[in-house]
Amino acid sequence: MAKALDEIATPAVLVDVDVVQGNITRMAEAARAAGVRLRPHAKTHKVPEVGRLQMKAGAVGLTLAKTSEAEVFAAAGFEDIFLGFPIVGRDKARRLLALAERIRLAVGVDSVEGARTLSDVFAEARRRLDVRLKVDSGLHRVGVLPEQAVGVARAVADLPGVRLTGVFTFAGHSYGETTPEGIAAVGHQEAGTLTAVADALRGAGLPVEEVSVGSTPTARHAMATRGVTECRPGVYVYNDASQVSLGVCRPEDCALTVLATVVSVPAADRAVLDAGSKTLSSDPLRPRAEGHGWIVGRRARVARLSEEHGVLTVEAGERFHVGERVRVLPNHACVVSNLLDRVYAVRGDRVEEEWKVAARGRVE
Amino acid sequence: MAKALDEIATPAVLVDVDVVQGNITRMAEAARAAGVRLRPHAKTHKVPEVGRLQMKAGAVGLTLAKTSEAEVFAAAGFEDIFLGFPIVGRDKARRLLALAERIRLAVGVDSVEGARTLSDVFAEARRRLDVRLKVDSGLHRVGVLPEQAVGVARAVADLPGVRLTGVFTFAGHSYGETTPEGIAAVGHQEAGTLTAVADALRGAGLPVEEVSVGSTPTARHAMATRGVTECRPGVYVYNDASQVSLGVCRPEDCALTVLATVVSVPAADRAVLDAGSKTLSSDPLRPRAEGHGWIVGRRARVARLSEEHGVLTVEAGERFHVGERVRVLPNHACVVSNLLDRVYAVRGDRVEEEWKVAARGRVE
Repeated sequence: MAKALDEIATPAVLVDVDVVQGNITRMAEAARAAGVRLRPHAKTHKVPEVGRLQMKAGAVGLTLAKTSEAEVFAAAGFEDIFLGFPIVGRDKARRLLALAERIRLAVGVDSVEGARTLSDVFAEARRRLDVRLKVDSGLHRVGVLPEQAVGVARAVADLPGVRLTGVFTFAGHSYGETTPEGIAAVGHQEAGTLTAVADALRGAGLPVEEVSVGSTPTARHAMATRGVTECRPGVYVYNDASQVSLGVCRPEDCALTVLATVVSVPAADRAVLDAGSKTLSSDPLRPRAEGHGWIVGRRARVARLSEEHGVLTVEAGERFHVGERVRVLPNHACVVSNLLDRVYAVRGDRVEEEWKVAARGRVE
Repeated sequence: MAKALDEIATPAVLVDVDVVQGNITRMAEAARAAGVRLRPHAKTHKVPEVGRLQMKAGAVGLTLAKTSEAEVFAAAGFEDIFLGFPIVGRDKARRLLALAERIRLAVGVDSVEGARTLSDVFAEARRRLDVRLKVDSGLHRVGVLPEQAVGVARAVADLPGVRLTGVFTFAGHSYGETTPEGIAAVGHQEAGTLTAVADALRGAGLPVEEVSVGSTPTARHAMATRGVTECRPGVYVYNDASQVSLGVCRPEDCALTVLATVVSVPAADRAVLDAGSKTLSSDPLRPRAEGHGWIVGRRARVARLSEEHGVLTVEAGERFHVGERVRVLPNHACVVSNLLDRVYAVRGDRVEEEWKVAARGRVE
């Protein structure tokens, strides 16, 4: 079954199995040492085989965002899923009801109006759906502000058909930080904000079993805070150029690369790959938007992208030739996982398996 | 088969069939009036049903970029395909050889080294592949510079196994222009550069049957130039917010929108959709990068994107409520087509058909 890397067509997404296993083991050990449950966000890989490695290392379950993603992972045998997205609507609620018959399921809510659309369907079926309240710890995307949390939590807890089981947050604002100290500060603030909300809810007589934090940059800082019970990092499983730029991992901790062919060298300082935004995505590098990926082991980076072209800026003294293959370390691993239907599991230059990206494109 | 828009889950990509037909008809008429062949770039839709509408309106064939895309469209019955990308490598050449047994096929080349990888395989099989020389008319991505064209064309024409049939260019630099006059100037320059190259090749005794231009912004200007034989616009079939911003089409000419649900209204000036970069892509608006899509008929735009969240900036006086549905006009239609496996063909609020995006994710 194994074959050489030279035998596969480019562009292709490669995932180094040994690097993945190392990343999974280290995060699992960190969670164990901190005494928190690890519930990785599987959006980064969308691959059941990778999710199983995470479970084997001690994860309590997976995090995903959308109903259709949970359907895919439930069909693949995963029995404990938290959807960290405010699911809204009776049609989605009916799908969640079917899922909740088969697996342990919880979903995020951040408004009474949204929660009511789930509550109605579950109450009619005489079932209860576990929900967690999303708290805005500074990203200002979704989530209730800390000062609104008790009010919304009480109203949600009073709805029939749902059971409030905890609070959660996502510190995506860590991706704007440019120093390790800045990232650590966001992690402490994220966890401090959420544990304070949890205390306020408990003080108001509301149940709080789970206090769930975690982005990959802040995970180790946030999980160390007393009162945190669960952590949900995603990107750590593959890592990417943004995590390296943020100082969160080393280049050798990056498991996902894109194998590409040089198709044109129109000038001494320019070479063009057959991998563009349809393979690398147009997501910017974090924390500073500089280019669209690095060429592994070479003095060049992807300076511009079209859909099918990656245009390299080549440093003086470096040369590329038409037909050679390179590996690109992309800015953002999760969005690369969402573009192609399969990835190649590799060890060094050997392709060991093809993994279907089973939850690719599941946005509903 | 038809159903109401309310019955489909969000987010979903909608394509208005009447708008598509209008766009196809107008571009076909423009090409006919200019006396040039129309070979639309099917990357915008990736849908055989839409390609058939283009053929029915008089297109001579389709343009695509990659070998695997041609394989999909050939399997769907399309018999004349030009790949406007510098295809490189013996593995791709073997796939092209199989395709060329079944359909009329031509591919782009921009270097002797690249062309030789195709030439070898076709010469061994005692076949000839039609190739066209890509000329850089100002985008500075791939393509030979005009002053290099005769030299490279002669070397390519001398290779066994290939037949040089023409020249082509893509004026992607039109997307940086901010006025109709600027876009028109790029179109005239694009066509002027390419026809001059064609004349130089003919002067050197080289065959030039096709002189092929065209981006959606420049199409009407470039096709009007004497000596141009073919035009390859893509985006016109759907249009998008960038084309409106560039002044190339009217808002009512946009056929593709994303149906999304408001899942959170955390503040008076902010609402959050269940459509993020996994549905809208993170491609910037052209020519000025401002936000990630407009909300049709509402005073709001997508200011920020995460993978699953579209964060709206809501103007004073406008209000959204949790659970309501909106339509988003995305920045770039082609990349949206590459994200989901199906689109819904609609007329007004009725869903008439589901179209499989058959060539989605075909990057090889």
